[in-house]
Amino acid sequence: MPMSDLHGSVADPALTSMTLLNEIAGRFPDAVSFAAGRPYEGFYALDDLPRYLSAFAAHLEREHSLSPAQVRRTFFQYGRTKGVIHDLIARHLELDEGLEVDPESVVVTTGCQEAMVLVLRALHRDPRDLVLAATPSYVGFIGAARVAGMPVRGVAEGTDGIDLASLRRQIGAARAEGLRPRAVYVVPDFANPSGVSMPVPARRALLELAAREDVLLLEDNPYSMFRLDGERPPTLRSLDAEGRVVYLGSFAKSAFAGARVGYVVADQVVVGVDGRESLFADELAKLKSMVTLNTSTVAQAVIGGFLVENGCNVVTATTREAAVYRRNLRAVLEGLESRFGPSWPHHGAVRWNTPRGGMFVVVTLPFPADDATLEYSARRFGVLWTPMHHFYDGAGGLTQVRLSFSVLTPEEIFLGLDRLAKLVDDLR
Amino acid sequence: MPMSDLHGSVADPALTSMTLLNEIAGRFPDAVSFAAGRPYEGFYALDDLPRYLSAFAAHLEREHSLSPAQVRRTFFQYGRTKGVIHDLIARHLELDEGLEVDPESVVVTTGCQEAMVLVLRALHRDPRDLVLAATPSYVGFIGAARVAGMPVRGVAEGTDGIDLASLRRQIGAARAEGLRPRAVYVVPDFANPSGVSMPVPARRALLELAAREDVLLLEDNPYSMFRLDGERPPTLRSLDAEGRVVYLGSFAKSAFAGARVGYVVADQVVVGVDGRESLFADELAKLKSMVTLNTSTVAQAVIGGFLVENGCNVVTATTREAAVYRRNLRAVLEGLESRFGPSWPHHGAVRWNTPRGGMFVVVTLPFPADDATLEYSARRFGVLWTPMHHFYDGAGGLTQVRLSFSVLTPEEIFLGLDRLAKLVDDLR
Repeated sequence: MPMSDLHGSVADPALTSMTLLNEIAGRFPDAVSFAAGRPYEGFYALDDLPRYLSAFAAHLEREHSLSPAQVRRTFFQYGRTKGVIHDLIARHLELDEGLEVDPESVVVTTGCQEAMVLVLRALHRDPRDLVLAATPSYVGFIGAARVAGMPVRGVAEGTDGIDLASLRRQIGAARAEGLRPRAVYVVPDFANPSGVSMPVPARRALLELAAREDVLLLEDNPYSMFRLDGERPPTLRSLDAEGRVVYLGSFAKSAFAGARVGYVVADQVVVGVDGRESLFADELAKLKSMVTLNTSTVAQAVIGGFLVENGCNVVTATTREAAVYRRNLRAVLEGLESRFGPSWPHHGAVRWNTPRGGMFVVVTLPFPADDATLEYSARRFGVLWTPMHHFYDGAGGLTQVRLSFSVLTPEEIFLGLDRLAKLVDDLR
Repeated sequence: MPMSDLHGSVADPALTSMTLLNEIAGRFPDAVSFAAGRPYEGFYALDDLPRYLSAFAAHLEREHSLSPAQVRRTFFQYGRTKGVIHDLIARHLELDEGLEVDPESVVVTTGCQEAMVLVLRALHRDPRDLVLAATPSYVGFIGAARVAGMPVRGVAEGTDGIDLASLRRQIGAARAEGLRPRAVYVVPDFANPSGVSMPVPARRALLELAAREDVLLLEDNPYSMFRLDGERPPTLRSLDAEGRVVYLGSFAKSAFAGARVGYVVADQVVVGVDGRESLFADELAKLKSMVTLNTSTVAQAVIGGFLVENGCNVVTATTREAAVYRRNLRAVLEGLESRFGPSWPHHGAVRWNTPRGGMFVVVTLPFPADDATLEYSARRFGVLWTPMHHFYDGAGGLTQVRLSFSVLTPEEIFLGLDRLAKLVDDLR
């Protein structure tokens, strides 16, 4: 069959660019890779899995008074569409984020990816609907929008996160075209790919803007516990007095990615034509029942056991990982400084940002850093990185690269930066 | 927010009818329920899960020569989009269905539900595209189509499955309207809800029609191993000489439903505008990467271990379940015969079909069997069933009920039929 007979998204750069980058990476297995956005895997142990399963079974018996037969049914049968670890997730959000969340407003999803698809599909009533997203944007969000058929308009990002003046202008422009901006997607803490965070005043201003413009905020929060130093700022959700925020959560970085367990907190009230009220979570659950029925009960049981074992305190559960990411972020920043800082004869030709946490640093090079340059970098110098232009829906980021450091050692980081310096010397 | 601002599918009967039926069932927990379409759960054991995980880990080390670190990565990290048990599924299809399947053409999905969503989304290029489905239809398929934005037209079903003359007429009518029929959805063995199967000549005729009309066949096969007696007929896929069939598979009934592991076999060749060829499976995988990234690795590991332990022979692995379903199907058919057969004074007023396997029997009553009747039946007589009209996209099945017998004992079946007989006496 001709590709042109298939849904447009299969040929969309948002869905194909990561495949292309993986292809390049796959051809250079011995290169130092700043490309992979995977969590650190040094602490994984197969023995954890049966222990987590048992811990969750014990939790169901103890806290929910389930009989052994009911526990078996929870593990093996079709399950509750909104999930079976919603109470544990609510407890985690209370302990780690200071959020008061009704467990009924939680939908456990097949990774945060499914949560984004469900929210975008639900908000796509007709072709007038669109969402806005800080640019550069997480490719998973753009891809989810493509699959859901939801148009996305990019909004410039500054050093304080999404640019509010641009956002207001974009919303106004869309309305002037007869379109309907429904929501704004943001990662307020250590955004992927930029590493940028929003200061608290910017968060408050964004919430005010959302209220004034009557749009939802889709807050995605996978990285906030991986902070270099200082206090964790409040989430948008915790500053939100009037239900503007749909909160997207993930256990991919805190527990493990393979489980594919994420969630969405959606306590907005939906009013039917007959006046009956429901939670937005329940409407999302209707869609979920036709996408995946329910999130794998075994996967939920594993994540549930992880939560139970850690008293639902994910920040303390991820102390070791957080230390690795801190160590590596420091190594990247120090390594960049020693190679391209004031002691470098060409000081200023290479610039970078200084995120206070997360997994990513953005470096601006004195030459275009496109896919061809990546291939050259890998082949000639043995170092991989991600061209930032993939995270811009139009042109943008052409001389920028994302350095991801989550799975490396400091030694690998310094070796990789030495190689990057050679690339810079070669192409400068 | 007003419901009318959300995607139309959240208010669609295909998505809401099952919720409504579950609500009614939930109010009558002590009723005998012929409503639940769940697999039998008497053989589930929590201890199976860690054993399956170990068996799959050993398989990865032994058959794929993975190091312990690589095994851990397979279990815990983001994984291959098309899945990690594709080789085991291909082996199962060879052993149990006589199918030769390239493992690369398998996409492991979050239950068969996600497979349907991916296929329907991929085939929905523009508003002219539509699919056809035998009616009464599996609600999960109709729901997947709603979420994917793919229109479905129903085609009458006879005692030999989908009516080929109606199908040809419908395809012709759609084309005359400028529309583009892309695929036909069928469950050739023991369809849900009708229990109807297609004889081999009807399968061959359907394949011929598909070739002549240039449409794909979406073959869904969750029940074929649960056969009352006789030889299992060949799948459409095994009779398919020219790649017309996209094969949808599930482990919900053969292993267990909670895992949410299904798959699609899609070895059709897709040709890009540049002439590059890919498998349809690879295009589906692009969409999957933006819906769920990859099927939960833990869930795949559990199903993978189940397959490894059983030498990938699912028919022999499900011998005990098959015996239960056979016993129960016989009980339902004998129970109907003894209550509404020739010895009944009103013989002929209640009719039923006689499926040769599966989990469902359809009974035609001498009065409308709508949701209000169901509520009355549960409240007054303590018996639940599923009104067939929910499986018709328009009007249809108004006096029919689906009896599902998978989770009952013969004693419960006879008690439930006694109660059904009282309902008939009351309303006849």
